[in-house]
Formats: sequence, C-alpha cells, structure tokens
Amino acid sequence: MPSEAVTSEALLAELKSIVGERYVLTDPVDTGGFLTDHRARYHGSALAVVRPGSTAEVAQLARTCAAAGTAIVPQGGNTGLCGGATPLEPRPTIVVRLDRMNRIRAISPAEETITVEAGCILQAIQGQAAAHGLLFPLSLGAEGSCQIGGNISTNAGGIAVLRYGNMRQLVLGLEVVLADGTVLDGLRRLRKDNAGYDLKQLFIGAEGTLGIVTAAVLKLFPAIRTRSIALMQVASVEDALALFARARAVFGERISSFEIIGSSYMDFVLRYVAGTVMPFAAKAPWYLLLEAGDSQPDAPLAAAMEGFLAEAFEAGLVSDAIIAASLAQEEAIWKLRHGVTGEFKLAGKTMSHDTSVPVAEQPDFVKRVEAGILAAYPDANVMMVGHIGDGNIHVVVLFPHERFATADDFEAASDAIDMIIDDVAMELGGSITAEHGVGRTYRKRLARTKNPDELALMRQIKALLDPDNRMNPGKLFLPATEA
Amino acid sequence: MPSEAVTSEALLAELKSIVGERYVLTDPVDTGGFLTDHRARYHGSALAVVRPGSTAEVAQLARTCAAAGTAIVPQGGNTGLCGGATPLEPRPTIVVRLDRMNRIRAISPAEETITVEAGCILQAIQGQAAAHGLLFPLSLGAEGSCQIGGNISTNAGGIAVLRYGNMRQLVLGLEVVLADGTVLDGLRRLRKDNAGYDLKQLFIGAEGTLGIVTAAVLKLFPAIRTRSIALMQVASVEDALALFARARAVFGERISSFEIIGSSYMDFVLRYVAGTVMPFAAKAPWYLLLEAGDSQPDAPLAAAMEGFLAEAFEAGLVSDAIIAASLAQEEAIWKLRHGVTGEFKLAGKTMSHDTSVPVAEQPDFVKRVEAGILAAYPDANVMMVGHIGDGNIHVVVLFPHERFATADDFEAASDAIDMIIDDVAMELGGSITAEHGVGRTYRKRLARTKNPDELALMRQIKALLDPDNRMNPGKLFLPATEA
Repeated sequence: MPSEAVTSEALLAELKSIVGERYVLTDPVDTGGFLTDHRARYHGSALAVVRPGSTAEVAQLARTCAAAGTAIVPQGGNTGLCGGATPLEPRPTIVVRLDRMNRIRAISPAEETITVEAGCILQAIQGQAAAHGLLFPLSLGAEGSCQIGGNISTNAGGIAVLRYGNMRQLVLGLEVVLADGTVLDGLRRLRKDNAGYDLKQLFIGAEGTLGIVTAAVLKLFPAIRTRSIALMQVASVEDALALFARARAVFGERISSFEIIGSSYMDFVLRYVAGTVMPFAAKAPWYLLLEAGDSQPDAPLAAAMEGFLAEAFEAGLVSDAIIAASLAQEEAIWKLRHGVTGEFKLAGKTMSHDTSVPVAEQPDFVKRVEAGILAAYPDANVMMVGHIGDGNIHVVVLFPHERFATADDFEAASDAIDMIIDDVAMELGGSITAEHGVGRTYRKRLARTKNPDELALMRQIKALLDPDNRMNPGKLFLPATEA
Repeated sequence: MPSEAVTSEALLAELKSIVGERYVLTDPVDTGGFLTDHRARYHGSALAVVRPGSTAEVAQLARTCAAAGTAIVPQGGNTGLCGGATPLEPRPTIVVRLDRMNRIRAISPAEETITVEAGCILQAIQGQAAAHGLLFPLSLGAEGSCQIGGNISTNAGGIAVLRYGNMRQLVLGLEVVLADGTVLDGLRRLRKDNAGYDLKQLFIGAEGTLGIVTAAVLKLFPAIRTRSIALMQVASVEDALALFARARAVFGERISSFEIIGSSYMDFVLRYVAGTVMPFAAKAPWYLLLEAGDSQPDAPLAAAMEGFLAEAFEAGLVSDAIIAASLAQEEAIWKLRHGVTGEFKLAGKTMSHDTSVPVAEQPDFVKRVEAGILAAYPDANVMMVGHIGDGNIHVVVLFPHERFATADDFEAASDAIDMIIDDVAMELGGSITAEHGVGRTYRKRLARTKNPDELALMRQIKALLDPDNRMNPGKLFLPATEA
C-alpha cells in the first residue's frame, strides 16, 4: 500500500495538475451536494470532488489514485436510489464527477447510432435523437438530470423496457477506464461483433465497481409517430395479465409500456401530487396504463385501441377505461403513474422496493406480499405500482410520520418488511432489485438472497478487475468480515 | 497436475459410471463425425465422446475431468464454421456432446419465455414457439441441426438480427457448468434483474472456453402474421443504404431482414444451387432482399411495399424489383440468398469471411476490399453477400480448383487475403468476425487485430474461470508462446 507516502496535500496538488485547479472541489459548500445521495439517506466524505474534462484526464486520475492507494467513487447525475454514488468508506477517496464530459461525439442517422460521453444528460440524448427523427428509448423519472454513464453503470430500466430492453440492450460500444488507468477502448459502432468475449457487458450494471464508464455508442430507433394511451380499471392482477396477453395479440411489439397502479397508490397520488385528477367516477382495485406506439404517422392505433377495449369490456376484464384524446390527456394519465419520491416524504415514513418476479407469478407475488406485510404490520399502507409487463412491481409501504419512536425502530421494521418481500420474491424465482441496482442500500439483502456460487464468482471478478478494492468500495458487496 | 495418476482406462470407467456405458463413445466408427468440424477442415482426437443426459451428469463429468486434468470440448450440433467444437490439442480430452439434453423444460406464453436444455435443436424451439402462437426469432442456415447451446456459446446471428438482436439479446437466464463442476444456476425467467453483475453475459459467445452451457431461458415474441418480401436490383452499396433509410422510414421496426447479394454471388448461386431461377430480365451489380413482417394478420404491408418500391423507382434507386406473391415465391427469393457452403466446394477453392463494419462504412469497405484483393490476385472471383442492415457483409473469394499447386500455396494466399480484408475492417472500426465467432480458424487473426488491452483482459478472465486451461483449450487464444 503506497498510500502512506502520499499526503492529502500532495495528492490534491496532483489532481489539480491533471484537471485544473477549479475542477478539484474541496470546499464543503461546493462538494456537499455530491456527498449526499438523492434520497438524502447517506452522507459521505471525500478528499475532493474532481471533475475531469476528458477520458485522458480520467485515466490520469485513475493512475494517480492507483499510485496513492486512493479510492474512486464515480458519479453521474447523483440520482440513484441506492446510495451507489456516495463515498461511504472511511479511507482516502475522491469522487469523480463525469458532468463535464457531456459532448455528443457523433450521431449517425444512417446507422441509427449515437456516440456520447458519460456525462451527457439522458434528456439531451433523447433530444438529439429526436432532432434527427429518431428515438433513444430509455426513459425514466430522473431523465432531466441523470447522466448516461450512470444509466449504463446501473443498467437503468424505466418505462420502455418492455419494447426496447433495459440500458444493457441499448449499448453497442463502451469506453471504460480501469482501476489502473488503462483505457479500454471498445467504442465500436457495430451491430454484430463476435471477436472474443463481450467485455463491455462486465461494466454495464457494475455500478462503478469495476471501472469508470467514460463514453458509449448507443442504439437509436425509428421515432414513434403515432401513439395511443389508455387507462383501465381492473379487478385483479390476474385480469391485468389476461389483458396483457390480449394487448400483445392486438398490438404486438407496438406496446411500449404496460404499467399497473394499485388502488392505494392511486389514492396517494391523487391526494399528494399536485394537478392530478381521478378520471373515473368510481374507484377500482387496480389501474392499468397501456401505451402503444408506431413509427408510421398514419398507423390505425386509435381504432385498434377502441377495438381492444370494447372486447375487454365484453369479456368482463375492464370495468371502466379512458383513451387519451390529446397530448394534455396523455400527460395527465402518465402523471398518475410517474415518480413521487418527493411526495412520499410528505405523506409519512416510506419503504420502497424494486422487486421483479417472472411475469406470470405476479398475482401470487402481490397477494403473498400484501398478506405477509399486513400480518406483521396491520397498520401498514401497502401500495403497489410498476411495470407489470416486465414483472417489476414496486412495493411501497407507508406508515404515519409518528409511527416509529426512533430511527432504530423504523430500521427494524424496514428490515423485517424487506425479509417478507425478499422471501416471497426468492420463492417465486425473482430478484430483489429489478432496475434500481444494489449500491449501498441493498448489499445486505443481496448477500442474503443471492445464490452463493454467483456471489462468489462476482467477488472473483471484482478482485480480478479491482484487486485493491478502490473502485466504488463498499458498494454491492458487504465487507468480507460481514459476509 | 493430477493427470498422471489417472490412466485413460480408469477415466473411461469413471465416465461410464456417470453417464452409462452406451453414452461413452470410443469406437472411431461412432466418434468420427464428432471429431471433424462442419467444414471438414479440422480432424481431432479425444479419449471419448461423452453424451450426458442431465446437468447433474455434466457437473459430475466436469468434476471428474478436473480431478484427472482432462480437457473438455463441449459440442452442440457441430455446425460451427470456425472449428470451435473440434478437439485439437495434443492432450487428454473428452468431447461432451449435449445432444441428449434436448428437453423443452417449460414454455410460458403469458411470459413469452421458453426454458430449454442446451441440446435442443434450434428448429424444435422455433416449432414449440409457433405451436403456442409465438416466435423464437433466431434463424440461420443450420437451424435444422444446430443446437441452442451452441447458438448461445457462439452468440449466433443469422437473418433476423436487425429486428431481434443476436442470440445474446434473446437469453434471459442461463445454467452453466463451470470448469470445477460448479453448477451456476441462473435460470431466471426475469425481464429485469439488477442484483449484481450479469454473469450470464460471460458465457454467451465464449465458445465453451469458460464453462458448459446446459440450459437457458429464452425470450419469445409475438408471431409474425403478415409478411412482405421484395427483391430489388440496385446499382451500388450507397444506393442500398439509401434504400435502407427509406425502408426504415416506411416500415420502422417491422423490417426483419435487409440483405444484400452481389452480382457475382448471384451468378454463382444461379449456376450451382439447384432450383434457383433469376427473377429479372437483366443483371444488376447488386440485389437487395427486404423482408417486413407484422404481428397483425391484416397489416397493410403489401400496399406499403408497393408504395416503397414505387418511390424507390421514381428516385432512381431501384432498376427492377419483384414482390413475392406466394409462399413459393418467398422461398424462391430466400433461396437466392441462403447458405451454399456445400456448393462452394463444387465451384472451386473458396475463402469465406465474416466481417462487420459500421453500417455507413459499407460502401467504403466493399470498394477497398474488392480493389485490394484484385490488385493482389487479379484472377480472384470476389463475391459478396450478407446482412447489410447489420453491417455484416460476407466476402467469399473463389479460385478455380487447380489455381494453387499445393495446400501451402492456398494457405499463403488465404492468409494474404485475410490480411487485406482485416486491415480494411480495422481501419473502418470493424470486426473480423461478426457472427461466426473465433474458434480455431480466426484465433491468429484475432491476436493480430484485437486491441491488446482487450485481449489481455480476455486472457485474465479465461485464467480466472479456467485456471488449468481445460475448457475448450486451443480456441479463441493462441498459445502464449505464439501470442
């Protein structure tokens, strides 16, 4: 360990010589926002927050940190939900923010590819694609501030996974800086490449624990020129899946989103989210949001949606439904579904989950989870909302602000509820984290639920690529002593 | 190395006790077909060809071989084009054929998933999907005999990559037996799973060098119920790409294949492939095959195709075209495009390639490759055919049978032509092997062209998962002494 030889002062001087003095932040006024996670659950500390301007600078930072034994926490838009971008280990660490590396390096409509730096805001990439008559389909709540490097490092999901896959499926090429400063240049614009192991897959979803993603070549798609969005009231998750099968038969791959909203979540949204309006006369146990889209400007989607709903009514699968007739109505429907992390805090103490199970197991999952939580906490408000087309239902458990006397009491209840949900998920062949990743928040649950052979291989890969455990340490894995 | 301690006889007895005597083949009459590759370029030898009937048996075989220091070459349908399934190292080796493991373990129309064992024939999986009104989209020449384990291990491509991705994008879960016999059970039916590193990606496309794929969960899709296929005559690759852009605008994601056939390849097919007929009055420099499909039975694709072609004529991009009006005509068009490996041997000495470049670089690629080869070998017949929508044009160079006096002369010319093509591909940011993989055939070219940092990391991963180099040794990598 060479770290003893390098004082913090000397290291800071070196960092400054690499990126320029103004891009090495040490004043708490400047760094504070980058040392706390998006949900304000974690507060970390670092020698500095460093903002490199190029891949070469990132590589040089990595070499410098390797020589000094300093840890590196890469950070994109800092919108992650699991504390993955906050420096939390008690050791010399720098945060490497990629925000200055926000150039669109190239866009090729003929190839339907875009080459971007890690710090590009997701929305900017969507916009560039749209300006060329194309679509970059990744879409999620934080798209106005999250960065593509973070999306890649967390294998982001969102509302169009059903049609386009998650982030992993949208990456053609990747540039990564390894722990020792090697630049792994895999920025190929190829649709097919079987020349050896597909190394980029290692870094997608690795949450910065194996290297720093600095740039990527992404797939683009034909833009959606016709759209139809419906909101339905349904009696059960079983009926929702029956409707999903029917929708697949009618719309095929044109379905871009198939989302479910539970009754109590809907109540919550209507109460706390400004500007939301219940579009139905009565309540229902579940609400389904179906969006279909077509690249053809004259695709008869509206007629197809009417036909689909007419048959669904006739079959007794839907009790009421609306079809958006304007952009404003489309937005009003989506508003009922979209993220409300901020509002949760107003409503009380919440515990959010990101489970997935096989699509067909969701009725069982929902029933068992609700029953399990209510048996242990009869006063819990168990809300459900999510991507039923992907098997990914978010369970949000809400308690009144005053429910828990101490933070420890809250944590104990939170752990108990995690166990209830995780056990059901595991029995059904599910995952404790479908799209949010592991970060700091889920590492204990990962250690408890992951197949030991898989966890062992994960640790071996981590040790291979980051032998000194300097790349985003303390994330994904529990310390060996606790494992 | 414990191998000295175990005699061949003792090992064979142990193998027989695992899988049963009749499934350990040692008689050359029985093993011959499995020790020669599909193109009959490689002839290997093995202690035995072993046919396990279950994952547990594969795991036990792996443990036994680990203890004995015996190498394992996994083999599916033995239809690979790069010698990847032939045992070629001078050391104790067994071939593990997966053909008995051919059960469809489960199919879920509601989830659009199918769980299959590695030995399932691709066509059988396509058939099972179709029987449930669904589509398994992987499609390639050998689909009647290749096995899904081989498709996964080579990350197979084929004629529908443009729409559905290659094999990697069709795998949801994977079961793999590691070198030490550990069964890595990742057979999850999940659309989303961010619980740690996505380990299955390591084994997809690894050509059996990191473990033995024993089962997989695959994605299914809505069946195609309307189809339109056209064959066009075009003047240049530039025009072909202009037509691709127009086709994307008209058909969007409905395009499942966009294939190109060069003039001399067309001549070759018409001459050597029985039952092929030229559908046009005159010849053209290039032919384009466009297939569009829709899951809706009444999709107006025929009208769209007519409109597309009318505008293409008007723009001067197409000189003649036909639209298939029957299944027989569809098949007749595809016959002009499909694999003719057998016929190549009749026509002369051939050298086949599997290059990819970024889609927009293909005009440059085609021109430079043709000029380069003809400058060195003015008598070469340079034929081109491939997946222009994916940037993957196969260059096939044909010489008369008597052109080379000795096998060494042929090899020298073959190496020289490889260099010409590979250099152009590398300059254009391409890959020397788009879909066929590396196997034995391409390992020298891989070593020459692959970025050294990537190759070094590939070797580290190989060493991590297979420290004794017993899993399909001699594939992908050159021996360290030659590298």
